[in-house]
Amino acid sequence: MAETNTSHEPVRFETHPDRYVHWKLDFPAEHGGKVARLMMDVKEDRGMRPGYPLKLNSYDLGVDVELADALQRIRFEHPEVRALVITSAKDRIFCSGANIYMLGSSTHGFKVNFCKFTNETRLYLEEMSAESGIPSLASLNGTASGGGYELAIACDDIVLADDGSSAVSFPEAPLLAVLPGTGGLTRLVDKRKIRRDLADAFSTIAEGVRGKRSVEWGLVDEAPPKAKLEEVTKRRIGALVDRSTRKAFPAVKLPALEVKRSGEEPSADKQEIEYQYVTLELSPKQRTARLVVRAPSSKQPETPEELAKAGASAWAIQAFRELDDALLELRFNQPLIGVVSVETAGDAAAVLAVDAMLAKHADDGLVREVTLLMKRVLKRMDLTAKSFFALVTPGSCFAGSLLELALASDRIYMKDTEDEPVTVAASRMNAGSFPMANGLSRLQTRFLKEPERVSRVLEQGALTTPEAVKAGLVTFAPDDIDWDDEIRIAFEERAAMSPDAMTGMEASLRFAGPETMETKIFGRLSAWQNWIFQRPNAVGERGALTLYGKPERPEFNWQRT
Amino acid sequence: MAETNTSHEPVRFETHPDRYVHWKLDFPAEHGGKVARLMMDVKEDRGMRPGYPLKLNSYDLGVDVELADALQRIRFEHPEVRALVITSAKDRIFCSGANIYMLGSSTHGFKVNFCKFTNETRLYLEEMSAESGIPSLASLNGTASGGGYELAIACDDIVLADDGSSAVSFPEAPLLAVLPGTGGLTRLVDKRKIRRDLADAFSTIAEGVRGKRSVEWGLVDEAPPKAKLEEVTKRRIGALVDRSTRKAFPAVKLPALEVKRSGEEPSADKQEIEYQYVTLELSPKQRTARLVVRAPSSKQPETPEELAKAGASAWAIQAFRELDDALLELRFNQPLIGVVSVETAGDAAAVLAVDAMLAKHADDGLVREVTLLMKRVLKRMDLTAKSFFALVTPGSCFAGSLLELALASDRIYMKDTEDEPVTVAASRMNAGSFPMANGLSRLQTRFLKEPERVSRVLEQGALTTPEAVKAGLVTFAPDDIDWDDEIRIAFEERAAMSPDAMTGMEASLRFAGPETMETKIFGRLSAWQNWIFQRPNAVGERGALTLYGKPERPEFNWQRT
Repeated sequence: MAETNTSHEPVRFETHPDRYVHWKLDFPAEHGGKVARLMMDVKEDRGMRPGYPLKLNSYDLGVDVELADALQRIRFEHPEVRALVITSAKDRIFCSGANIYMLGSSTHGFKVNFCKFTNETRLYLEEMSAESGIPSLASLNGTASGGGYELAIACDDIVLADDGSSAVSFPEAPLLAVLPGTGGLTRLVDKRKIRRDLADAFSTIAEGVRGKRSVEWGLVDEAPPKAKLEEVTKRRIGALVDRSTRKAFPAVKLPALEVKRSGEEPSADKQEIEYQYVTLELSPKQRTARLVVRAPSSKQPETPEELAKAGASAWAIQAFRELDDALLELRFNQPLIGVVSVETAGDAAAVLAVDAMLAKHADDGLVREVTLLMKRVLKRMDLTAKSFFALVTPGSCFAGSLLELALASDRIYMKDTEDEPVTVAASRMNAGSFPMANGLSRLQTRFLKEPERVSRVLEQGALTTPEAVKAGLVTFAPDDIDWDDEIRIAFEERAAMSPDAMTGMEASLRFAGPETMETKIFGRLSAWQNWIFQRPNAVGERGALTLYGKPERPEFNWQRT
Repeated sequence: MAETNTSHEPVRFETHPDRYVHWKLDFPAEHGGKVARLMMDVKEDRGMRPGYPLKLNSYDLGVDVELADALQRIRFEHPEVRALVITSAKDRIFCSGANIYMLGSSTHGFKVNFCKFTNETRLYLEEMSAESGIPSLASLNGTASGGGYELAIACDDIVLADDGSSAVSFPEAPLLAVLPGTGGLTRLVDKRKIRRDLADAFSTIAEGVRGKRSVEWGLVDEAPPKAKLEEVTKRRIGALVDRSTRKAFPAVKLPALEVKRSGEEPSADKQEIEYQYVTLELSPKQRTARLVVRAPSSKQPETPEELAKAGASAWAIQAFRELDDALLELRFNQPLIGVVSVETAGDAAAVLAVDAMLAKHADDGLVREVTLLMKRVLKRMDLTAKSFFALVTPGSCFAGSLLELALASDRIYMKDTEDEPVTVAASRMNAGSFPMANGLSRLQTRFLKEPERVSRVLEQGALTTPEAVKAGLVTFAPDDIDWDDEIRIAFEERAAMSPDAMTGMEASLRFAGPETMETKIFGRLSAWQNWIFQRPNAVGERGALTLYGKPERPEFNWQRT
């Protein structure tokens, strides 16, 4: 099968419920607005790219972009929501997972990034439950197979209609010679803690498991007769509403981000993507990019009330939404970029003032949502397969929440100059508000060996270059004379290395310390899936993924490694 | 480069210090026999296969087989040893890692299994220190690069000669477009807890880091001038001897295992490998094998003294050494085997009697070594990329330490028959004596969801099939009528699935629960390395690994995934 998505049609992540093609988001009156309902109703002929009909509620990236958007909006625009139910508008099918023909016709890089994005979205579902008090229920009115069951297993609670045919299944290994790529295997044994032998059997039975057995094996929580599905769903979602700890706050609308793009013509040497607080400057020929995040330049909210009034225009929301979009741009539309300089500009005091407000009002519902948004965006950076080198120079503002950008980078270069002041500074927000996937703060992860350094950095305020070096925050500190050459060479050298080796290296160095279900999903399961996605048994001419839906049978190389 | 090790020349793991080609094991008089010294002196022209000279103390599997043998013998044959020093007999070079030409000419499967074996050997070094009180010191009298530094970093303590040229380095990513494949990246940030940015810089500097900086970055513990290396090594190894907690016991010699092999001619349908307590029966055409472990049939030691007297002929040592050899046979010489039936035969009471002795005398030095040996072999099984289905039938003896074989299997089939008794039974040895790589016992890992089941199984004694089913120990329990068909179909179905998908699936399902440095090495780092080992940037016609040592420069696909 030809790989079709090497084309340069860019992926966009901006959408709105009014424009959803594949999902219906509503708030059934019977729950008094406390329940959001997401109904999957994928339009076969509206795939993101041509060439694959999205049959049987199968999904492509476009479907998942809408889901991710819906989750974000439920958090900000619907503070009254206390639980989420995910179901299907189609008869007898909940969701049949990622579309196989889409996968079969995608480049390796797209497959990997597609899986990463869908993994993040499912983790967001779990974070909504754990951190925002919005638990979720998957109401399976039909079969949930592959990514369909992976979506269900990301919910807190699963109800499956027992109608003699509806099943949950992972047919990836037996039918496609790949793995369930969206955390399914990890969640089987680590989240639902299903016995490994039952998980093994389940993951090799293409037709899946139905009814009573699906409950006995722990795959779903209840399997009522089809006629009772609605009633049981209602009862269970009511229980989720009751246990919700969500805090009230005024709704915040999320308008579309305004973006100016230039240099998109193929002949251009540089491409620029300009948001209000973020600039992404791309030099594909050099395989480098500049990512600049600016401090607030106008007065920012000082209380939760002012924050609610400012809404999405508040710097903490706007800048981090823009950063999120820029990171997705790098992943999906800029495969040739290898190294990104991470820069900041503006008034560090303005960033620290925002941080002080967020820290002071951490218990406020909206402040909490904003902080969680920032956390998710920073995690997105941790998981982006580009080399990030932070450049701390005069005029930069790596302070507090923006210091996290440096801490999320693979290296930190800080200019050692006496002419102009260069500083970095921590805030209370660096003390655990933005945990990494491993559950630790970036400062804790950095100083695993000398944990006492964490509190020292948190207490010290602004640090000059020599002080920051001493504190362990700086990788290299070239002086005025060396700076330009050293930075140039560092970027050239990095951009000359094998992109694959850098991806594997960074995935191994970024997440020291404890592992969590999340790091397992991205570190272990994804790596195995990436490996399998390269193997001829899956993607070769006679591979199972390639031949899916065709009359020919796959041919395997039987050597086990 | 042609892949040369597809030939059928089998790999053998049996060796002895008298026959070592590449290592010298001695016990310098100056330390009164308390220190074992391993000197690496690789013979260029004695590679395990033709086609690659082992220059600069680079290694292939043959070199590592000797190292693994030496570590095992130090534990059993030299109970007086309290510390180990690893150094090189070559001038100005400690070790330059795995031989690149060997890697370049190896099949994917061999590379993966080679890395797995070398990883296990390095973890054994660390286990010697942590569990047996034999800490180790790497005395780097010259450059340690790649796998050379990975060997050093597996030691507790590293001393590097500061002579202006000797360095430690990971040149894999910059020079070969692959990763340090023997746990190096993980140990940088998780064992030595080196800051991620310094680890990043270090792992991309092909020439490595020398002298003072290597100490500052935490890469080595001391870097004395070359003239003082011996003195410093002596001082530091003395300190290791002083902190050793090793317990005295009479030396146990490890004789060569006696093995009968039949059916090795290519025309044979079945191949049989027969040890005293273990039989491995291979049916490559069906892609299946039978692994049978027999209970002791003669009187076994009842005290540590009797155990010392019986030595390596004691069942606990002999059977598990044989099992270890059989597992390596499956990995290296039987790539076509996909599914292995795990069977036991003999008197369960005899196994439980051995277990009772081991549990009762757990504090004895030799008993402890035997238990650790059994633990390592069982871990080797956890990490073997074959599907294991345990078959519990009349006449089997899945009791205590042999119950672990079932718990290490992907599924457990237990015959439900009233005519003949079928039972399984736990012993005190199932309560934590054989932790998995995740630090938990196999029972704990199995019952993550219902931990109370662990103690129930431990307390209940022998369980019939219905009882074992109820206890959660059985995947499927077919009756007399169904057994043959169900087992046949299960094996046929499993053997028909993509070997790669099964490898990735099993790697994801076998290790629920906490992650450790060890699970990170096998789960995360190895998976990334396997992925990279498939990528054209490394192994394609113009890949860096393929072109190493040739005048041409590698050509990379610059797309990052």
